[in-house]
Amino acid sequence: MDFKIAFIGYGTVGQGLTEILLEKQRLLEEKYDFRCSVVAISDLFKGSVYDENGLDMKKVLEIVKSGKKLDEYPSGKKGMDSLSTIKDTVADTIIEVTFTDVKTGEPALTHIKAALQAGKNVVSTNKGPVVKQIAYILDLAEKNNASYGFEGVVLSGTPVINLVKYTLAGNKIYSFKGILNGTTNFILTKMEEKMSYEDALKKAQELGYAEADPSGDVEGFDALGKVVILTNVVLGKKITWEDVKRKGITDITVKDIESAKKEGKRWKLIGSAEIKSDGSVEAKVWPEKLPFSDPLSGIGGATNALTFSTDELGPVTIVGPGAGRRETGFALLIDLLEINRKK
Amino acid sequence: MDFKIAFIGYGTVGQGLTEILLEKQRLLEEKYDFRCSVVAISDLFKGSVYDENGLDMKKVLEIVKSGKKLDEYPSGKKGMDSLSTIKDTVADTIIEVTFTDVKTGEPALTHIKAALQAGKNVVSTNKGPVVKQIAYILDLAEKNNASYGFEGVVLSGTPVINLVKYTLAGNKIYSFKGILNGTTNFILTKMEEKMSYEDALKKAQELGYAEADPSGDVEGFDALGKVVILTNVVLGKKITWEDVKRKGITDITVKDIESAKKEGKRWKLIGSAEIKSDGSVEAKVWPEKLPFSDPLSGIGGATNALTFSTDELGPVTIVGPGAGRRETGFALLIDLLEINRKK
Repeated sequence: MDFKIAFIGYGTVGQGLTEILLEKQRLLEEKYDFRCSVVAISDLFKGSVYDENGLDMKKVLEIVKSGKKLDEYPSGKKGMDSLSTIKDTVADTIIEVTFTDVKTGEPALTHIKAALQAGKNVVSTNKGPVVKQIAYILDLAEKNNASYGFEGVVLSGTPVINLVKYTLAGNKIYSFKGILNGTTNFILTKMEEKMSYEDALKKAQELGYAEADPSGDVEGFDALGKVVILTNVVLGKKITWEDVKRKGITDITVKDIESAKKEGKRWKLIGSAEIKSDGSVEAKVWPEKLPFSDPLSGIGGATNALTFSTDELGPVTIVGPGAGRRETGFALLIDLLEINRKK
Repeated sequence: MDFKIAFIGYGTVGQGLTEILLEKQRLLEEKYDFRCSVVAISDLFKGSVYDENGLDMKKVLEIVKSGKKLDEYPSGKKGMDSLSTIKDTVADTIIEVTFTDVKTGEPALTHIKAALQAGKNVVSTNKGPVVKQIAYILDLAEKNNASYGFEGVVLSGTPVINLVKYTLAGNKIYSFKGILNGTTNFILTKMEEKMSYEDALKKAQELGYAEADPSGDVEGFDALGKVVILTNVVLGKKITWEDVKRKGITDITVKDIESAKKEGKRWKLIGSAEIKSDGSVEAKVWPEKLPFSDPLSGIGGATNALTFSTDELGPVTIVGPGAGRRETGFALLIDLLEINRKK
């Protein structure tokens, strides 16, 4: 397929994808028969530009990275807002990477719906819309014969949705459990090195893993969103935020970690869901003491890991990056390659 | 695709696949548009049967599991040998699961070549042919517009070839390292529990992990074969047996394991290959002391694990089963589903 892409929002993740597309153009053509041009970009702060014949993305990166606005781009139409960029351009695929309120899912939710209703594919790393309305969005995509890709939402660049679809094809998946939040895992790893919780959190903030208000991570809300998505998409069970039990890591002390170590165990913040024999689901985010023999126990730092319980293969675990500008940008490419396979 | 399958060899792995196909028939049809009938079976000891309209596989399993020969099957043509079953039946896909000498690759190699030359797909869990002649076989398959599936050869049911093709699509892979042999990992895990090497080996033999002559496992030959396959297929570098440095686990003592533990490390038999900056490859099977922070370090028992170094995602690790009758049978299904995707 020859994708005609529009970026809605153009921060570090979108720029990361652009770099990958520029660097890998030949590989993508030769190995995956994948071609694309970017025809439009609309960003609340950086402005917008549209050229139906495709933008020179090297030039765009130059402009944006030097802190200038897209009005500086030498040609094309300027000033289109996000909705008209979605609806009134030749773009067939919308990359939705705006700054979005994770609680309301806006403005991403509005953008995604508008694009799908116009029969355009959407690829997005925004968590809010998926957590809020995944079933509705997937339904809308199907009705409009369009695709909705959200690989980057769960474990950033580690492609778990794709793993389930292809690599674990033919299996029934009964449950999953995983380290779904890199920040808390980083903090717990530092605490194993006898750093206090407060110092470890500070270190995580310095490194850019944790936000100024760290509650989304340390109270387990981020992991909870991922549990909701995985339960809906991988286990096929419709649950919402309210169905997930949640406890963060703020009560865990260095002493707890030391005493677990003596038992041959490690504290991890585990997001999990399991289909019970009566068909109901138990979903939770909860600190757990895992024995060293559990593959999740050995995962240190900001890495993510996820174990699926399958009927044919037993437990299968994937371990990979859980964050990063370029890794998250790459997740968008995974979704684009998947759309390319289907067309 | 409506597969017409012939089994060449019909031991526990082929029977395992048959059970899966019978149990999952509906799932496979509905979810993957996959349909198949088994038209022929030819086994050196169990005899052979051919019916172009498809065999009743429940009946076949009954006969075989009660120790009877396929001549007891109430209809169909009897007595065809393996080569005529490959060439002179309506089968379009050959499942090659004979007892094969891993050193010569025979008789599997002859079967595989005959099938591909006749333009028939081949799916096989036989290691010998892949290790010996992978490049030649893949070439032959392409020339004859047929497919050759060998997912089960590497990590049994853990689908690493598929993982690289789909889940890691878009990445360049520079190196891999993994626990590629479940028997030696089981022995090392037992030795961590202070069992002697001799007792751990005996235990592995009792559980059916290790053969009476354990040298294929403990001297690293089995892992070496997998390194050869992965280097050819995943790294795209043509190497053979002779290019891989090898050392097994027979020199490792409980004392070595104890002293590693004090350093925060664990001994593992690691199969690895790396593309060097000059384009050459360094491939080896060697015992390595891994820090607890390495995801491979926490892998206990007969489990397998493999870490790929990718350009976009950094290290990505998959952990799953490395053996088992049903798991290996399932690997054949993974290959069939992949052929089904392509048709």
